[in-house]
Amino acid sequence: MGVTTNPFNNKTYEIPSKEEELKDLKDFIAEQNNEKIVVVQGLGFVGAVMALVVANSKENYTVIGVDLPSEAHYWKIASLNEGIFPIESSDSKITTYYENAKKKNNFFATSLEEAYQYANIVIVDINLDVQKQQNSNKELLDYDVSLEGFKHAMRSIANWCQEDVLVLVESTVPPGTCKLVVEPIFKEIFHKRALDLEYSIGHSYERVMPGPGYIDSITNFFRVYSGIDEKSADATEKFLKTIISTEEYPLTRLANTTASEMGKVLENSYRAMNIAFVEEWGKFAESADVNIYEVIDAIKLRPTHNNLMRPGLGVGGYCLTKDPLLASWSSKNLFGGDLLRVSERAVQINDQMPLHAFQLIRSNLGDLNNKRALMLGVSYLNDVGDTRYTPSELLYDKLIAEGVTIDLHDFFIPFWEEKGITVSTSLSDLLVNNYDFIILCVGHKAYKENVELLKFLMSKEHVIFDVNGVLNKNMIEQLRNKKLRILGRGDLL
Amino acid sequence: MGVTTNPFNNKTYEIPSKEEELKDLKDFIAEQNNEKIVVVQGLGFVGAVMALVVANSKENYTVIGVDLPSEAHYWKIASLNEGIFPIESSDSKITTYYENAKKKNNFFATSLEEAYQYANIVIVDINLDVQKQQNSNKELLDYDVSLEGFKHAMRSIANWCQEDVLVLVESTVPPGTCKLVVEPIFKEIFHKRALDLEYSIGHSYERVMPGPGYIDSITNFFRVYSGIDEKSADATEKFLKTIISTEEYPLTRLANTTASEMGKVLENSYRAMNIAFVEEWGKFAESADVNIYEVIDAIKLRPTHNNLMRPGLGVGGYCLTKDPLLASWSSKNLFGGDLLRVSERAVQINDQMPLHAFQLIRSNLGDLNNKRALMLGVSYLNDVGDTRYTPSELLYDKLIAEGVTIDLHDFFIPFWEEKGITVSTSLSDLLVNNYDFIILCVGHKAYKENVELLKFLMSKEHVIFDVNGVLNKNMIEQLRNKKLRILGRGDLL
Repeated sequence: MGVTTNPFNNKTYEIPSKEEELKDLKDFIAEQNNEKIVVVQGLGFVGAVMALVVANSKENYTVIGVDLPSEAHYWKIASLNEGIFPIESSDSKITTYYENAKKKNNFFATSLEEAYQYANIVIVDINLDVQKQQNSNKELLDYDVSLEGFKHAMRSIANWCQEDVLVLVESTVPPGTCKLVVEPIFKEIFHKRALDLEYSIGHSYERVMPGPGYIDSITNFFRVYSGIDEKSADATEKFLKTIISTEEYPLTRLANTTASEMGKVLENSYRAMNIAFVEEWGKFAESADVNIYEVIDAIKLRPTHNNLMRPGLGVGGYCLTKDPLLASWSSKNLFGGDLLRVSERAVQINDQMPLHAFQLIRSNLGDLNNKRALMLGVSYLNDVGDTRYTPSELLYDKLIAEGVTIDLHDFFIPFWEEKGITVSTSLSDLLVNNYDFIILCVGHKAYKENVELLKFLMSKEHVIFDVNGVLNKNMIEQLRNKKLRILGRGDLL
Repeated sequence: MGVTTNPFNNKTYEIPSKEEELKDLKDFIAEQNNEKIVVVQGLGFVGAVMALVVANSKENYTVIGVDLPSEAHYWKIASLNEGIFPIESSDSKITTYYENAKKKNNFFATSLEEAYQYANIVIVDINLDVQKQQNSNKELLDYDVSLEGFKHAMRSIANWCQEDVLVLVESTVPPGTCKLVVEPIFKEIFHKRALDLEYSIGHSYERVMPGPGYIDSITNFFRVYSGIDEKSADATEKFLKTIISTEEYPLTRLANTTASEMGKVLENSYRAMNIAFVEEWGKFAESADVNIYEVIDAIKLRPTHNNLMRPGLGVGGYCLTKDPLLASWSSKNLFGGDLLRVSERAVQINDQMPLHAFQLIRSNLGDLNNKRALMLGVSYLNDVGDTRYTPSELLYDKLIAEGVTIDLHDFFIPFWEEKGITVSTSLSDLLVNNYDFIILCVGHKAYKENVELLKFLMSKEHVIFDVNGVLNKNMIEQLRNKKLRILGRGDLL
């Protein structure tokens, strides 16, 4: 059956047999007397929290989370059913919501597709990945989008679901997917199953932000939605109203599912583009001895320019690094149009951003072989423990390839899943060592406001690279008074 | 001496001899008893209005505007001295300010560089152009920046000015210009003139917006400034405080002149980039039958995305069409850095935008030879009469080349200076004709809210192309009820 491990607390679980799981599922269903059952497909960063939100709706839903029975995924199911939420977060609402669901006994997880037979509503929160071909410098040589996994998941729902199910796709998909991929699958399978085409298919994209406002980023924020037809859009609207504060954050209905699918990838591409744009200006500013942060702060006073971004170490996470490519792929492959060259280019520029930090280090220190370094920050985002496509990785890989020995620290990351490396969460343990150089990679508040760290930085003869604007002007001044070399962008020029 | 013509009212003036002008200048100076004299170099869209603002400061400045004695420019001087402000505007404050200055008799214009000898402050508001090499499809084959005209203007000030003058450069220049171009000129000429280097050189960029808030866009808005040294920055600050409501809109001082020069071109490049970005998505949306305007409106509810632009006919005006190139040129030629490829690309994409409208027309109507068309809107901006680099031009040229006969209309433009063509400002005169097709190019309010126009559009068998989102949903519905063909972006899909 295999064993599955929660990488965050190293707890292991045996993967049960199908019979065992089926019995547990039936037992759970037998205990339920809520009017509606919502099944959430995918228990990742969005699905797990979405399921929690639904379990806490005033509507009294029964919620079943479904994920894969593989070693890489099953621990989430086991953990949930055991009473431990599978995502660590700085949002205290997560704990409250989870404890509440346990009390209500309306939240269960399984790997079985049999769960869909009970669903009045299925929420699709699985990933749809882009396969990038990149060299070691992150040049984007080619990329592809495979819909096979996603199609398989849709077939699994269509094979088991009730005739009048609402399928609400929240996954980020190539625009056109609901209409050109999902609906045909349901049509075909419903015909085979000799069912009437009574299903509703809606699309609505979340704007989940891990961190202290995790739950609120679902329940207290604007939502865009649509349906493959009027009935589907109405059903989607009705459901969303039961989980979102729509009086304060009114819903926006778009004309068709392709429009709302496009909205999601356009939002993220806009952000990616603005970072790529300003990255080029950051380099220009450095060559002209201009503090780009100061210039950007001045410009952002204009309301028409307040979305301007700052250059930093790079761009990570699951969205900005791939969504422009999903869109471009869709334009060419689903609609026979042109590639979105500008947006594609943004992805490559952003993926390559960490090379700037690497070059800064190498050009200032020369031969890096056998040097010892401390990297502060592994997450892709401030104040969050999320290593997905973190820009720290390219910098880490480049330094390792040059022969640097690196100690890693992040308050929020005990284990760097993608690389299989342990990360220290205790700063004190590391601040007794001698390093040739120290790299401030992530602007966690706990670095910015850390007296112990500042004292350590001031106490030794190391070179400090602040590659993400972590240090404030006051800290920079104190370090400079100690005649320490500090290098980086913006304020450090 | 030559004759000069105001293209807006066709009034002609003789260009006077130097002696005559010198006498007038001396007479004006003799009448003045204000403590300080401010000379504004350049009486274009910024300089003329800036001069007005200074003449209306509580500080009681005497203001002299300087422009070139050429046939293309001298009419502005003649017009000003005759009592007619050389810019037509929908901002009623312009008239009030100008009448007030006439009453105070503290505003005079001349072509003579001798004026600089009287100046305590010189404000530089001349143009610094980019020479683009483009083919007929506006591909950017190459471009160059010539500083010769600008240097000549700086020498002219340095040759005549007082020892302790403040030169405030407001022109949009390649970042680095004040430090690497202006200061060396003053140093050299002051040495030759055996003066102490007591000059101050500041840089501050305006954010002038022609239209109903013309004056306010100078006096009631945030300002960024800097100086080549502390003294220069202080002098600049002191002056700006006398013309801007700095309590409500605090000034931002940047570390050096290169930083504030960069701020200006970065602001405009950001805007240009965001338009270029969304242009690509507009095309994608069309191929996928998505109303891009609807999607954008939904996204803009997010504060982090509220700067997102809409695709339209194209980009015009003096700033967005060239400022990214000024920056890129500076990076390479003044600082030996890389070209700003992303920003450069934005210029080309935007310059080519009108081709989309042209292709829409041609692909729907086929052979255009001998067709008759009405183009509504020649200005590059809604509710403003400004034809500089207007995107209407490329569309016009392309249609003319195909053999279309075109009637032009714009409420604000009696004469299309760059093309030397008369434009009708009377809509009624044109709405009696028969056209094969009508193109709505500019979203002037007076088109959007025009019952007469709507009636005309509904009354005949023509094809309507709304290439800039001019028609609202209600108008579109009324036209569609009449079975009229209306084509365009967004809401028209």
